[in-house]
Amino acid sequence: MWQNNFLILLTLLLINQVCSDYLSTRNEILRAEKSMAVGGSITLTNKEKEANEILLRVKQKELQGVQEDIAKFPPARHFFVMKKDVEKSKLFSILQKLPKGGSLHTHLTASVSLDYVFTSIVSRENLHGCVINGRLKVKFFEKGKTNNLCKWEPIKDLRKKQATSDAWIKSQISLIHEGNPSNAYNSAHNVWNTFINTFATVYDMLAYKPVFQDYLYQALQEFYEDKVFYVEFRVNFPELYELNGTVYGYSEFLQTFSDVVQRFKREHPGFIGAKMIYAPNRALNATQLEQALSTYTTLQKSHPNVLAGFDLVGCEEIGTPLFNFYQQFNKAQNNINFFFHAGETNWYGFDVDKNLIDAVLLGSKRIGHGYALLKHPKVLEMVKQKDIAIELSPISNQVLMLVDDSRNHPATGLIAQGFPIVVCNDDPGFWGAKGLSYDWYMVYMGMASKDAGLEFLKQLALNSLKYSSLPENEKNQAIRDWNVSWEKFIDDLIKDKAKYQ
Amino acid sequence: MWQNNFLILLTLLLINQVCSDYLSTRNEILRAEKSMAVGGSITLTNKEKEANEILLRVKQKELQGVQEDIAKFPPARHFFVMKKDVEKSKLFSILQKLPKGGSLHTHLTASVSLDYVFTSIVSRENLHGCVINGRLKVKFFEKGKTNNLCKWEPIKDLRKKQATSDAWIKSQISLIHEGNPSNAYNSAHNVWNTFINTFATVYDMLAYKPVFQDYLYQALQEFYEDKVFYVEFRVNFPELYELNGTVYGYSEFLQTFSDVVQRFKREHPGFIGAKMIYAPNRALNATQLEQALSTYTTLQKSHPNVLAGFDLVGCEEIGTPLFNFYQQFNKAQNNINFFFHAGETNWYGFDVDKNLIDAVLLGSKRIGHGYALLKHPKVLEMVKQKDIAIELSPISNQVLMLVDDSRNHPATGLIAQGFPIVVCNDDPGFWGAKGLSYDWYMVYMGMASKDAGLEFLKQLALNSLKYSSLPENEKNQAIRDWNVSWEKFIDDLIKDKAKYQ
Repeated sequence: MWQNNFLILLTLLLINQVCSDYLSTRNEILRAEKSMAVGGSITLTNKEKEANEILLRVKQKELQGVQEDIAKFPPARHFFVMKKDVEKSKLFSILQKLPKGGSLHTHLTASVSLDYVFTSIVSRENLHGCVINGRLKVKFFEKGKTNNLCKWEPIKDLRKKQATSDAWIKSQISLIHEGNPSNAYNSAHNVWNTFINTFATVYDMLAYKPVFQDYLYQALQEFYEDKVFYVEFRVNFPELYELNGTVYGYSEFLQTFSDVVQRFKREHPGFIGAKMIYAPNRALNATQLEQALSTYTTLQKSHPNVLAGFDLVGCEEIGTPLFNFYQQFNKAQNNINFFFHAGETNWYGFDVDKNLIDAVLLGSKRIGHGYALLKHPKVLEMVKQKDIAIELSPISNQVLMLVDDSRNHPATGLIAQGFPIVVCNDDPGFWGAKGLSYDWYMVYMGMASKDAGLEFLKQLALNSLKYSSLPENEKNQAIRDWNVSWEKFIDDLIKDKAKYQ
Repeated sequence: MWQNNFLILLTLLLINQVCSDYLSTRNEILRAEKSMAVGGSITLTNKEKEANEILLRVKQKELQGVQEDIAKFPPARHFFVMKKDVEKSKLFSILQKLPKGGSLHTHLTASVSLDYVFTSIVSRENLHGCVINGRLKVKFFEKGKTNNLCKWEPIKDLRKKQATSDAWIKSQISLIHEGNPSNAYNSAHNVWNTFINTFATVYDMLAYKPVFQDYLYQALQEFYEDKVFYVEFRVNFPELYELNGTVYGYSEFLQTFSDVVQRFKREHPGFIGAKMIYAPNRALNATQLEQALSTYTTLQKSHPNVLAGFDLVGCEEIGTPLFNFYQQFNKAQNNINFFFHAGETNWYGFDVDKNLIDAVLLGSKRIGHGYALLKHPKVLEMVKQKDIAIELSPISNQVLMLVDDSRNHPATGLIAQGFPIVVCNDDPGFWGAKGLSYDWYMVYMGMASKDAGLEFLKQLALNSLKYSSLPENEKNQAIRDWNVSWEKFIDDLIKDKAKYQ
């Protein structure tokens, strides 16, 4: 009898041992994966832990029922249709308050909210418009004029006509069409065409010097209100003009940019600043590129605090590959900081994703998009070894039809492996976004683990300063200042605890 | 003067050196990535190189213009709408002729083409149908009978009615709806509901013993014609029945399966065989699971050549996680080969993707789908170290709405890193496919590098035998036999060169 009891006891002990071994190995894997992911090396303070509990509670609440009903989960749906749901989210309101550091990949002429552009720029005196080949052209000048191609009219007259109503004008200065977005664009190629046309439409409107000053100021304002205190703009230098027809050169443009930024800093304590990455269109030949590099070098010497680097823009899939210019870039890489767009594509083995190889070999400090990185494991090794940040713009990738559901975004794999991600907004004004919080929401809710907490968000914010072009001393100061804002954010979150029950 | 010339010469030499350094580093990266990817360790023979040139020429030709017009690129579109384009492809016709080895993940009751099922089974004498809650039920029996729930009618009478026309019946025994597939299903949840209902509908029809025998034979036939000579079926054992109401137990089912496979082998030289992985639905409790494991163990002893292992099926996202049963599985893992479905999801940090951790810890020999693997880098390390194959079913993942464009499938990253991929077809009959070539096409054209050639395809075929459940000696023989078919395929491709110009 006692032998039987002993055997039963032994068996139970053995089962217990096997189970606890299994559980501890499993927990070890979960722990290891958490520590490998973005934010995994951050240890939260006690106060941060308290705030983290509040954050995770809000997050888990918003994730309730999403597996059964995907319509409850905004990151899986198109930004155009889910934006209003995001705005109702408590988690989004926390992200809006969170000091996010900087935005390192924003195209200047698509950076301001559509609301502001339509309400405060389109409505201005002296703006004229005409329609050519079904597209709107707009420009400021004093009196109506007609040329062979286009019949200019005051914009306020156009807005009264049914064919050129306000809704239509909005569709010309953004990608927003009424109705279902999937009916508006049937392919990446198609949406890119409209995208390029949109840049062309707004160009002449924004290059009017007084408008440009207001537009840039507003861009900074929208970032500032969204708790983004530093910006690096991609800019294909516009030729600013006056009503009387005066056209300015690049130098005047740089001075204007610098003046607005300085004024904004004076009027907004805590704001760190803004720089530009000169980014002409990639549709150029070798001679034009050499000219652009030379222009950049000259201007960078005279405006070292304004110009942070060089890039090429435009549709990468059909544009000139970086490889075509490797000799020019290679020669310049010791003197110019490159921040190349590379691998903004879902093709594999084509020139466009091979841009990733050249970007890394040409010493690119960061990579714009890098959507195809997971298809290039050798490049990924180099990215890790050289500590190159990846500029992730999730809403852009969705609107420009690389991916429809954020959960399928390849950066989910990069996040899991702890690559240095910086969240950017690319062209928020063109898709009805504003600031950086919408993109942060997509990344945090749709692309990070359900278990990711405050350590993940803290890492994103720190990355955006660490991988910025600020000189070392300014960067350190910026991180110290950010820490003060962060502490306050944590305190407020704890103080507002009741609001988030 | 000569000094100037000397300087120019020196500069040119230096530039030349820098350029050639750049190019050789770049080529080294391209070479390294090619050798890391699936197929990268294979060295082609001279004859294979000749065939590879033909293959790549056909491939490049079919890729012409796809970047400008995605409608020309089937893997980026839904299988329902692009299938007919694939069938016109020369590359597809090569893949059909290529000896593909085995299919290691096919659900038996969804394995046969819709055409055959509709033409040769639905039309049979004694099949009766009724409609309940808008769904078709079908069963074989001798005379019409009525019960409280359902009014049974001969299927040929139902087919004459508008509400239960042939098109509607097809929509009940497959996922194919007329018109645009994106209108038919608006979420993964929605398509999974129909998917589960479809299994329920066909179950009673296929469990009629004479039909089951024909169905299984036809499944093998369709694989054989598609140059697939070995199959492992996931099966939730049906209770076979006769017209007179006799119902058989599992043992009779196993014997019937074995008899059909043996007969098929005798009648089809070169065919290796078929096995089953017992896969009950994951909606069970611990007691039921223990019962299922015990049933499997008993049956496996009496049918060691028929039963290869154990798995659980059903929608993983809403089903019981493997972790709930880790004690039972852990106890059994030394005696039972597991082939778990795991991570068939785009969620991250949920129970469903954590199934990947348990699958690996429980010694799963292969992983079904593993769609979420890139989000689990620690699991990936273990998958590599333990050499666990990943059963990739690209069309299934598209139809069941994990991903719409194959180029975004996360297995692209696994392919780039050379993970052991086996291409499978999951449930071809439910989406109008047949055999394995459609899935191979999706993988080769949509998920591998543009530069991937014959070495990639050869690796896929070899993987499907290497990671099969064949005993070592049979596996070696199977690979030797496959080599003979492969040589013939290479010879034929070279002989038919003119056809592929």
